[in-house]
Amino acid sequence: MSDTQNPHPKIVTAAILVIGDEILSGRTQDKNMAHLAERLTEIGVQLREARIIPDIEAEIVAAVNQLRSKFDYVFTTGGIGPTHDDITADSIAAAFGVHIDYHPEAMKLLTRHYQTSGIEFNTARKRMARIPDGASLINNPVSKAPGFQIENVFVMAGVPVIMQAMFEEIIPRLIGGAKMLSRTIGAGLPEGRVAEKLGILQKIYPTVAMGSYPYFRQGEVGTNLVLRSVEADQLNAAFDHLMTELTKMGASAVETS
Amino acid sequence: MSDTQNPHPKIVTAAILVIGDEILSGRTQDKNMAHLAERLTEIGVQLREARIIPDIEAEIVAAVNQLRSKFDYVFTTGGIGPTHDDITADSIAAAFGVHIDYHPEAMKLLTRHYQTSGIEFNTARKRMARIPDGASLINNPVSKAPGFQIENVFVMAGVPVIMQAMFEEIIPRLIGGAKMLSRTIGAGLPEGRVAEKLGILQKIYPTVAMGSYPYFRQGEVGTNLVLRSVEADQLNAAFDHLMTELTKMGASAVETS
Repeated sequence: MSDTQNPHPKIVTAAILVIGDEILSGRTQDKNMAHLAERLTEIGVQLREARIIPDIEAEIVAAVNQLRSKFDYVFTTGGIGPTHDDITADSIAAAFGVHIDYHPEAMKLLTRHYQTSGIEFNTARKRMARIPDGASLINNPVSKAPGFQIENVFVMAGVPVIMQAMFEEIIPRLIGGAKMLSRTIGAGLPEGRVAEKLGILQKIYPTVAMGSYPYFRQGEVGTNLVLRSVEADQLNAAFDHLMTELTKMGASAVETS
Repeated sequence: MSDTQNPHPKIVTAAILVIGDEILSGRTQDKNMAHLAERLTEIGVQLREARIIPDIEAEIVAAVNQLRSKFDYVFTTGGIGPTHDDITADSIAAAFGVHIDYHPEAMKLLTRHYQTSGIEFNTARKRMARIPDGASLINNPVSKAPGFQIENVFVMAGVPVIMQAMFEEIIPRLIGGAKMLSRTIGAGLPEGRVAEKLGILQKIYPTVAMGSYPYFRQGEVGTNLVLRSVEADQLNAAFDHLMTELTKMGASAVETS
């Protein structure tokens, strides 16, 4: 069993930093967080924090510096377009204390892109080629203007279809750790009835995080019990134990996904 | 005009702290943030930051203490149910350095609720009456278990229908400031063409925040230009000026909501 070979699998952590006034004003609903949360879990990276902050340089600098020292990876979305309110690249440069300038490779690929499409490569569009010193580019297969990586910080576009494409490009650069496994039981009991037993089981299986989420569906009250662990044997033992206890209580209990 | 009477309207700021492993794992999509962002804007409170953190006491304590010193109001959601993973109340008590115990008023209303509904008021459910010293209760018209306010921090449930009801209960306690007004223009131009002009107008109207959001609809490329300000006259002047410039450029430009 892989657990025997690797009894203490490495935990790899990440934070997401969503940059944009439009999310905080309620005008636009963020769609990137949920997507990144799911994809990161799949590759063995645990999302530990998400922050949404406005397009203000001091805020971006403070958040980036706090998060990059605390987590293995930081993923930012938003603020790398051609307009004056797109200040993410400059703010990241400031956070790292490095210079920012037109990146030769980015200039080349944008020049070619706009030539091909017959669109003027004006001053505003050239802003999208400004990349902090020492950063490597992240390919943008959708609209060409690249994202970039500097140390453990990955800077991506805010438009979901572009962000998702950029994230797939950077997956080969990420080193995942232990994969978080999970199993869920849908129990036909209110949370308050299952709580005591769940608390006891949590103490027996300390490496299995047990979450309890009530649901209300067509007048029916129930609880989704989510067990999560990087240790498959502990997860399965806790799952079987909880199933047995729920059955003893006379509750309907089925595994759901 | 109200702008003349009150040339420097007070800016009131807020942060939202979403507490819960299930949001970070991607299992549950947060629905509270967008609702709060909209309602806060309506009552003259500007949402300046949103954070999502896991059910870990040290993380909750650090985030609450950072946010409550930085913003006028902090709203937390999640982690106040009956199960062992609901640790928000204890963590808030720790953040404020105060004791936490069964709150007489909360005990009374939960005792009555469970008596009426014929459900056992067991130890787990009694956890929901634990409130930090010095906090005042927030009424929960949906499922009775209260939230609470301690100083400028408002602690609410995570289930959206309950959170929304709790928020309506606390609105009378909030003192709003200048209302952020906004007007949006849908322009039939790509972002890169409107960028330069928008940057020039931003310098002319420094109190009007100008945001630019590209859209792609059925092969049509355009940009939503969002102007926001607490000063109605500046907002309207900037709006008219931008409309004129867009028309000069030969772009379709209509006000959208």
